[in-house]
Amino acid sequence: MMHGDLLITSMLERAENLFPEKKVISRTGEKVHRLTYREIGRRTRQLASTLQKSGLQRGQKAGTLAWNHHRHLELYFALPAVGAVVHTINIRLSPEHIVYIINHAEDELLFVDADILPLVEAVYDKLTTVKAVIVMTDEALPETNISPVYSYEEWIADGDPEFSFPDDIKETDPAGMCFTSATTGNPKGVVYTHRSTVLHSMSLSLADSAALSESDTLLPVVPMFHVNAWGLPYASTWMGATQVLPGPRFTPGLLAGMLQDEQVTVTAGVPTIWLALLKELDEGNYDVSALRAVICGGSAAPAGMIRTFEEKYDVPFLHAYGMTETSPLVTVSRLKSYQQDLTGDDRLAVRARQGLLVPGVEMKVVGSGGTVAWDDEEMGELLLRGPWIADSYYKDDRSDDTFRDGWLHTGDVCTVDKEGTIKIVDRTKDLIKSGGEWISSVDLENELMAHEDVFEASVVAVPDPQWQERPVACVVLHEGREENKEVLLHHLEQRFAKWWLPDDVLFMEEIPKTSVGKFLKRELRDQVQQRLEAKRR
Amino acid sequence: MMHGDLLITSMLERAENLFPEKKVISRTGEKVHRLTYREIGRRTRQLASTLQKSGLQRGQKAGTLAWNHHRHLELYFALPAVGAVVHTINIRLSPEHIVYIINHAEDELLFVDADILPLVEAVYDKLTTVKAVIVMTDEALPETNISPVYSYEEWIADGDPEFSFPDDIKETDPAGMCFTSATTGNPKGVVYTHRSTVLHSMSLSLADSAALSESDTLLPVVPMFHVNAWGLPYASTWMGATQVLPGPRFTPGLLAGMLQDEQVTVTAGVPTIWLALLKELDEGNYDVSALRAVICGGSAAPAGMIRTFEEKYDVPFLHAYGMTETSPLVTVSRLKSYQQDLTGDDRLAVRARQGLLVPGVEMKVVGSGGTVAWDDEEMGELLLRGPWIADSYYKDDRSDDTFRDGWLHTGDVCTVDKEGTIKIVDRTKDLIKSGGEWISSVDLENELMAHEDVFEASVVAVPDPQWQERPVACVVLHEGREENKEVLLHHLEQRFAKWWLPDDVLFMEEIPKTSVGKFLKRELRDQVQQRLEAKRR
Repeated sequence: MMHGDLLITSMLERAENLFPEKKVISRTGEKVHRLTYREIGRRTRQLASTLQKSGLQRGQKAGTLAWNHHRHLELYFALPAVGAVVHTINIRLSPEHIVYIINHAEDELLFVDADILPLVEAVYDKLTTVKAVIVMTDEALPETNISPVYSYEEWIADGDPEFSFPDDIKETDPAGMCFTSATTGNPKGVVYTHRSTVLHSMSLSLADSAALSESDTLLPVVPMFHVNAWGLPYASTWMGATQVLPGPRFTPGLLAGMLQDEQVTVTAGVPTIWLALLKELDEGNYDVSALRAVICGGSAAPAGMIRTFEEKYDVPFLHAYGMTETSPLVTVSRLKSYQQDLTGDDRLAVRARQGLLVPGVEMKVVGSGGTVAWDDEEMGELLLRGPWIADSYYKDDRSDDTFRDGWLHTGDVCTVDKEGTIKIVDRTKDLIKSGGEWISSVDLENELMAHEDVFEASVVAVPDPQWQERPVACVVLHEGREENKEVLLHHLEQRFAKWWLPDDVLFMEEIPKTSVGKFLKRELRDQVQQRLEAKRR
Repeated sequence: MMHGDLLITSMLERAENLFPEKKVISRTGEKVHRLTYREIGRRTRQLASTLQKSGLQRGQKAGTLAWNHHRHLELYFALPAVGAVVHTINIRLSPEHIVYIINHAEDELLFVDADILPLVEAVYDKLTTVKAVIVMTDEALPETNISPVYSYEEWIADGDPEFSFPDDIKETDPAGMCFTSATTGNPKGVVYTHRSTVLHSMSLSLADSAALSESDTLLPVVPMFHVNAWGLPYASTWMGATQVLPGPRFTPGLLAGMLQDEQVTVTAGVPTIWLALLKELDEGNYDVSALRAVICGGSAAPAGMIRTFEEKYDVPFLHAYGMTETSPLVTVSRLKSYQQDLTGDDRLAVRARQGLLVPGVEMKVVGSGGTVAWDDEEMGELLLRGPWIADSYYKDDRSDDTFRDGWLHTGDVCTVDKEGTIKIVDRTKDLIKSGGEWISSVDLENELMAHEDVFEASVVAVPDPQWQERPVACVVLHEGREENKEVLLHHLEQRFAKWWLPDDVLFMEEIPKTSVGKFLKRELRDQVQQRLEAKRR
């Protein structure tokens, strides 16, 4: 057999050759572009030839600080095409962390959206490796103290639209890079290869996974700086799907409008986005009937939300699980063929799990007594391996904690039911250890969020002299609902043992979240401590 | 990223772990077995441990002479699992060719169905490397002069059902082997690797390819000794689909009955099978409404047949193209999203083409003047490359003719339309060269078969003193239709230039076919020569 290196360029070339008239619809904030794959291909080749002329060497990195738009997509392909690495930077990180990761990755170039430029200006003198900044804008280059600085459109204008990509790239060459927040200390970098990206795209497009197809119109709400928007732009380009890239700072109304106007079939994002969208759909008069899947990941989706999408809007909800270290696709929640007759709560219970391993990755779930039984009771840490799972952090001493014995130790605790589907019950560090037993904060949160009064809920551990740790619930109510601790505790009592019930329920205006919309439990624990101490005083 | 070798065992393990209760329904001719993937997994491990105990070394081959059944499936997985090679032997080859390929492959063991054993007995003294024969039967070992000989069930009985597969197999290790007939001389061998098999299985299961899913019930009519039944058993096992393996010598009635009784959703085979099935469906009273795809390959499907499946039975017809050297999947004919509104003949015209490249392979179509235009007029030879395309024949001097400059030269001539879909118009060697121009025998055949009187038609070149070559049509009529040459020529006149029209139409009882149901044009040309000479006398 031919070796046939698995290369990112082959994905773009398929779209250029077979689907040249299909569109990428790109909102930059300044305007909405409607480009064909033929145009995207020619622009990507212009960009690639310019990158090569700029002197960027094999294996060198270029950072992006950008929203979801066509220029970002062009960088996704052009940088790996010339053997360089597209390092997508999470613009919601602290300035300190942004400086750290740009210097740690040794980014040679930065590609920055005009409205994000101030963020770079503020730290530019601390960047030790960046040789130039290219500003992505439809308009004139903004005033800036950065130098040298170029406008993206002018920079690529002299590039060759028929540039032939180098033919000596290997599938094991680095292609992408993304940093993930650490519990303490600086973010940790993960490097993707051509091979991992292509195989991940294939798995994403399988009929039993997200089933991406040429007939789809994809709108990734998940940012392109967050694990490559879960790999969706790569897979969608490969399949020739229409892409709708929603650009900067869009509101739930703008999102609902785009879903309707572009007849979007697949969209993807974190639970908080979908909560906001449901609210918008409830108030507005939108037709989102083209949707065939709402992919949800990043953190566990509340069952009530899944129910609303499926029952009220007839939109299948595709609960998925993964992390930066896993490219990210690991599991998808789909009903097995013999589960199709399930209805109501039974059906929802399957849908709300993180689901089944996609073809291509392997798992092991290890508890205190070794590999756990598939009884959905025993909890253990999820271990993963496969060709799109990281084997280390980029130049980072912390690698050995996470990557051991050939497995990625996810730090996520789960149970496995007899069907082999996993349910994440907690982060190892967020589990609540009460009287020698484990309490799942996630289970309590989901049950709280299933209550009609509750908009959001998060449960954290507080130190306890007698039990070591005890759970405390933090709750955001829907507007106009009454704060009633007893009602919520009674609600939990229906499902959980008495010793699982939170010692207190604190009502809040909002729950602090990470840059990607996950509950920020560290900060929440501090807030809870302060509130409890204030109460005691 | 982890390397994560792409291994065939991982496909079986997924079925064992995630779909242990799903079934493989296997007709052996003696009885019908209904085994779960748990049982298939345990039996495969018994077999693998026995293979290892037998002394079979890494890279050594074992031949199979067998129909489509569960024991053949177990060999598909167990041999590669222990680092050996499953060499599937086409039982319809001549005894001389069977002897050649067993000796050329250096098969150490032969796994043979009881009813095929006489074929092996007849040539056993000519086999130079075979150390033992294992007979696959539900009943007692038949009397035989072969020694040593074992019964499969007794042979594996002491094997370990919990055997751990070796963990040092590499993705580039050989895993399978299949021979393809040559125009002249001995068959040529193709060796598949773990990597090629896994990647091919993935491509086969993409939403825009055959979209194999856990919810499918697959019945491969295409034999497991023919390019691994097009790779379908591997992909189906991986996805956890139900498999119906139809065993030996089944009739159209038996096939229609199994499609109905097992609620088959996907079936696959060559056009002659589907012609016979349509006749059976027409006469019988079968419910095949569960079918979601009839995959058709091996040779071009007549448009009339596609129309009958789609319009009369509402069964989507998935025309595909490939060959032994390509694992085999290369193209699938699907309507693009913006072609969905096509109706009638326009729709059929798309469906009848071989279709679009599946993700993962690349093509180049080269005519006399270089790469052809995508105008559906210019003809050229189809060149292919990719990770499941062969790079040589096994220990064969003829490799250099076919594998050149990094491309497989298929010997198939095609045109490409503006959508990038290919239409095979002929084999390079079957094209008819008349007066310096090319005539496609396949185009003429398809148009003849679209006539209501015609059951089958094949067109061959006969030497011509003036024009070099001229076409002659060979036609098999439906029962009871009248032989009328003028009617058929008039039918062709509607579509083709006058110089394309066959010089003669010969009516026949049947058209000679290869062991896999393709027209045997070499033999047909000889028959035509004799008939024409007899006419002249």
